[in-house]
Amino acid sequence: MKIGIIGLGLMGGSFSIEMRRLFPNSLILGNDISQINIKSAKRLELIDDVFEVNNLSGFDIVLISVPVDISLKIVNRVLDHVAEHTLVLDVGSTKLPICNEVQNHPNRQNFLAMHPISGTENSGPDASVKGLYTGITNIVCEKEKTGLKQYQLALSIFQKLEMKIIYMNPKVHDQHISYVSHLSHITSFILAKTVIEKEIDEKNIFDLAGSGFESTVRLAKSSPEMWSPIFIQNKNYIVEALSEYIDNLEVLKQMILKNENEVIINDLNNINRIKEILSGINNKRK
Amino acid sequence: MKIGIIGLGLMGGSFSIEMRRLFPNSLILGNDISQINIKSAKRLELIDDVFEVNNLSGFDIVLISVPVDISLKIVNRVLDHVAEHTLVLDVGSTKLPICNEVQNHPNRQNFLAMHPISGTENSGPDASVKGLYTGITNIVCEKEKTGLKQYQLALSIFQKLEMKIIYMNPKVHDQHISYVSHLSHITSFILAKTVIEKEIDEKNIFDLAGSGFESTVRLAKSSPEMWSPIFIQNKNYIVEALSEYIDNLEVLKQMILKNENEVIINDLNNINRIKEILSGINNKRK
Repeated sequence: MKIGIIGLGLMGGSFSIEMRRLFPNSLILGNDISQINIKSAKRLELIDDVFEVNNLSGFDIVLISVPVDISLKIVNRVLDHVAEHTLVLDVGSTKLPICNEVQNHPNRQNFLAMHPISGTENSGPDASVKGLYTGITNIVCEKEKTGLKQYQLALSIFQKLEMKIIYMNPKVHDQHISYVSHLSHITSFILAKTVIEKEIDEKNIFDLAGSGFESTVRLAKSSPEMWSPIFIQNKNYIVEALSEYIDNLEVLKQMILKNENEVIINDLNNINRIKEILSGINNKRK
Repeated sequence: MKIGIIGLGLMGGSFSIEMRRLFPNSLILGNDISQINIKSAKRLELIDDVFEVNNLSGFDIVLISVPVDISLKIVNRVLDHVAEHTLVLDVGSTKLPICNEVQNHPNRQNFLAMHPISGTENSGPDASVKGLYTGITNIVCEKEKTGLKQYQLALSIFQKLEMKIIYMNPKVHDQHISYVSHLSHITSFILAKTVIEKEIDEKNIFDLAGSGFESTVRLAKSSPEMWSPIFIQNKNYIVEALSEYIDNLEVLKQMILKNENEVIINDLNNINRIKEILSGINNKRK
């Protein structure tokens, strides 16, 4: 198996770890604008060597795992150079823009749009971890536009990784994911910002913050280069979700100002249903 | 040692576990408006029996670990009945209201206001865990108003629990904690609310939500009866923090609408400083 990975960060590096396990004799080549990332990826044995996107002869798989603004710029260039049987995958968190971008490419059948629901708040090749793609949910879009040969290869890998596959229209994907993923990142980034701005003497944060704060701002450690383009590409749905979130905050603020203890308790009791939802997520993972 | 615990939830029950470890021959008595909680606390051997607050003769320690609105209603009644040497502690997340409440009580010296920076999102006696008070930061307010004997007993316990003690004015406490704790709970509750409202078919949340969402909404599982009174008691500072948070969200929303990728990246890079802050918290805990 000859595999190319464009973007040697958390998602790309972790994909290499899975591929080395599934296909021990693969040749894995890497491409990244950062020489530091390439050096790290070689040191970590995530890649055997580098490759250029204008020479993809003999490649079985090319994974695009770069920020979503860069994906849009390179995906058609990658498709320009694929071999007849090459499978091109992308792991971006927005799916409508990339599906639109490739829709008229003569090699559209070489491409499969997916979104593995996995990741951590860390980034770069050194953040790569074993098992990041194993047993997770993977959202697949427009599979009918992917060639049979390419799709069968993808499916055999997904099955080996024990993924749960969900087929979804890219527009529906982008809308739903704006709520359960993109909005979480915004609330976390801005919580961190608000607290940092207030606590000019950071020592107070060290002293007073508990594990609850830590959990809530965990996503604020995420990569700016990765997340800003997601917010912009998915802005229609994100702004809708964010506006509803702000409206709900304003409602709670008014209830607090009016001392409406019973109303707030009733509201929080409804919100507590998230317990069952989260335990559903955990059961699913087991 | 004769110890009374008023409120047999997470904080009260976990305090009992610590006391049984530190003082194996103690008599630990409990008080709770819920008969179910009393029954659970007995079953879990958190308490040996029940007690009434109008009979505190011979008690060495009374811990008040009830929602902060209830604390205000009972703290003076507890002080009315203490023995000469009794130490009364409270663990509430707001400190100015309770310090004001007791300020003119003739037995003010029996009371010590504290806020152990610890907890989980779970509640009730069954949520009690070992070590919840061990090695944590404990904020102590107005120690100069506590009697020497009572304070020495408290300090000896804090030292045995290897707590890091921070002395803080109750007003400053309430202001700082509104940012690093209360605001986190609000952002998490409202994120959960917004997503639940949107995803009428909850199945979509199960399928699409990753560990990032889970981490960010963890606090939304917290007890409504505990948190609503905190929001109301600390409303001046919370509304200030919440307003700044909403303003920051609005600013990001505008940047997203205007496609200001570089500006957002720059902003998120500043926010990424939270990494070092959080790693400072973790180093502190080690």
